[in-house]
Amino acid sequence: MAWVDATTESLGPEDVRLPAAHGRVLAEAIHALGPIPCENRAALDGFAIQASASLGASSYNPIRLPLIGVNAGDALPAGADAVVPLQLAERDDQACIEIVEPVAAGDNVEQQGAVATIGATMAPAGTRLAARHIGLLAVAGLSLVSVVRRPRVQILIVKPTKGAESEDANASMIRVAVERDGGVIGECVAVERDQMAIGTALIETDADIVLVIGGTGRGTNDHSAAALAGAGELAIHGVALCPGETAGLGRTVSGVPVVLLPGAPASCLWVYELFAGRAIRRLGGRVAELPCRSRGMTTARKIVSSLGMTEICPVRFGAAGTIEPLPSFAEIGLMAAVSADGFVIVPQGSEGYPQGARLTVYLYDEC
Amino acid sequence: MAWVDATTESLGPEDVRLPAAHGRVLAEAIHALGPIPCENRAALDGFAIQASASLGASSYNPIRLPLIGVNAGDALPAGADAVVPLQLAERDDQACIEIVEPVAAGDNVEQQGAVATIGATMAPAGTRLAARHIGLLAVAGLSLVSVVRRPRVQILIVKPTKGAESEDANASMIRVAVERDGGVIGECVAVERDQMAIGTALIETDADIVLVIGGTGRGTNDHSAAALAGAGELAIHGVALCPGETAGLGRTVSGVPVVLLPGAPASCLWVYELFAGRAIRRLGGRVAELPCRSRGMTTARKIVSSLGMTEICPVRFGAAGTIEPLPSFAEIGLMAAVSADGFVIVPQGSEGYPQGARLTVYLYDEC
Repeated sequence: MAWVDATTESLGPEDVRLPAAHGRVLAEAIHALGPIPCENRAALDGFAIQASASLGASSYNPIRLPLIGVNAGDALPAGADAVVPLQLAERDDQACIEIVEPVAAGDNVEQQGAVATIGATMAPAGTRLAARHIGLLAVAGLSLVSVVRRPRVQILIVKPTKGAESEDANASMIRVAVERDGGVIGECVAVERDQMAIGTALIETDADIVLVIGGTGRGTNDHSAAALAGAGELAIHGVALCPGETAGLGRTVSGVPVVLLPGAPASCLWVYELFAGRAIRRLGGRVAELPCRSRGMTTARKIVSSLGMTEICPVRFGAAGTIEPLPSFAEIGLMAAVSADGFVIVPQGSEGYPQGARLTVYLYDEC
Repeated sequence: MAWVDATTESLGPEDVRLPAAHGRVLAEAIHALGPIPCENRAALDGFAIQASASLGASSYNPIRLPLIGVNAGDALPAGADAVVPLQLAERDDQACIEIVEPVAAGDNVEQQGAVATIGATMAPAGTRLAARHIGLLAVAGLSLVSVVRRPRVQILIVKPTKGAESEDANASMIRVAVERDGGVIGECVAVERDQMAIGTALIETDADIVLVIGGTGRGTNDHSAAALAGAGELAIHGVALCPGETAGLGRTVSGVPVVLLPGAPASCLWVYELFAGRAIRRLGGRVAELPCRSRGMTTARKIVSSLGMTEICPVRFGAAGTIEPLPSFAEIGLMAAVSADGFVIVPQGSEGYPQGARLTVYLYDEC
């Protein structure tokens, strides 16, 4: 993860139209170019008045004022500084209203600059734009915003050895995860299970990052690591992660980061989540961490993990806010991810947790 | 909200291709049509053996076996029931391996059906498909899945009265929120600020739900409620919600639900979030509740709200896990949503909360 962080940084900016900027990350802070609203406005439907003229009004002393109807959002007419709500004024026949209580200056008026004064920060750099930001920026009159460019991701699928069908399944899964993390799949191509073929594809890429799926092990049919070494630099091959031991990380000669994802689906998923996804999230200016929330919970049963390996342990919710372990990714593959409510990351130096231990659980409800 | 729930239900199913099913909601449970994997497979790179032949092997008694190389994911050859990892066997020149410890049947083998047995539920109806589900379903050989149809949403923008530019801003914001909630914007059209024009557009819609933005009040220039009453049924007009008092709900003559969203941006947002968004989420088979997480927190300062109105109060994080109130939506409009870390919904019957009160805070990090 430190290698990923040292190798990737936020891409440059591009301008996009406002509604299309949903979920994008602001490349620079946005400041109000003028006051919002740009004038004093009626905050509700009623009658515009000069407040001082209402002084002394009461049911014993109704005061008649000229009828100047305004609707919510209308600019206040010159001279008016307050709005009397529809239901608090009586209209008469002579284009006048009668009011029976005094009104203070500014009552029911949305003041110029109330939402933002000139120069106010409406959103800092790094903001991920949600509906509320789009609304505010649109109110401010923006139509284009400068956001971090989406990382172009090339997926190379190393053609499976006879009989194994999982590589295509991996491509569908990883495509969806890349999309979730804000990347754009530039290309998703199958390459021969051959060092030269993989190496050539790596050297020719024009993507911001390449993910190679399959052929990452040390078997006779595995060529991805050697291909990456030949096409640039194989910085890391083999990580103490279960599932995901045969992961690789490196760069092409032109400096494009490359992540080698194992072909076994559960390993592929976790190497994506921890390394490739992290790189893509960083390139796109997002938070690097796993895009799911975590919570401190207590385990109702012992969780066992191998010393020397960081292990992803699937868990489900038990009684009273506790969790309990499920069969591992090694045993039941992706079924562990699908049947779990979340997962625990047991660090390399730990053999697991005793019953009753308090630990951080990542929740599967959003990722 | 009860009216929304009584008026909307999950739309019918449609088949979509697997990678495009990301974020969609399963219309029916998916069961494994065969065991996964469909055969016993090598779990890692090594040599396939019959375990019984390794009985008694030790460094004093190495046993020679025929060399049958397998890569992770390969089907086990007939007769083999275990895999010896590459590094635990010595190859000799005569197409044999030598092993120095016994191996148990099933060692380093991924058993047929380990991930799922025939008929096992891989995902129940209602599952919102994430990368891990797409992966498992792809491994199971599915290419099409039956998901709830995405609601088609028509947005009618009532043309603003002179001087107010907020309606277009609302359209951008609501478009993005609809997208977040899984709806498809069928059309986003501007209509004259006129009862007949709005009514005609409502009657002619072929969408699953219509959102009318603007003209919802009781002013002389407001015609949306009357138009809806004329085009079908105005079930509710005016809600005890701040911001959002002039919201309306109803149906066209052909039964299409219609939500009237006020033109003031903060009101528009909240009427969307609580009513229109809820309807769209329900139509699309999603969880009806606000799509953001909530957490119990303590307020470091008194939160004041009007009795008789449900009020959305923006808050920011204070010291040590507390929150404190920010200027209200009524005062600073959408700036409240953008500067807040979250919000509190103060119910109608409450005047707010004293300092130190424990309350539910909805967090803005994901919505």
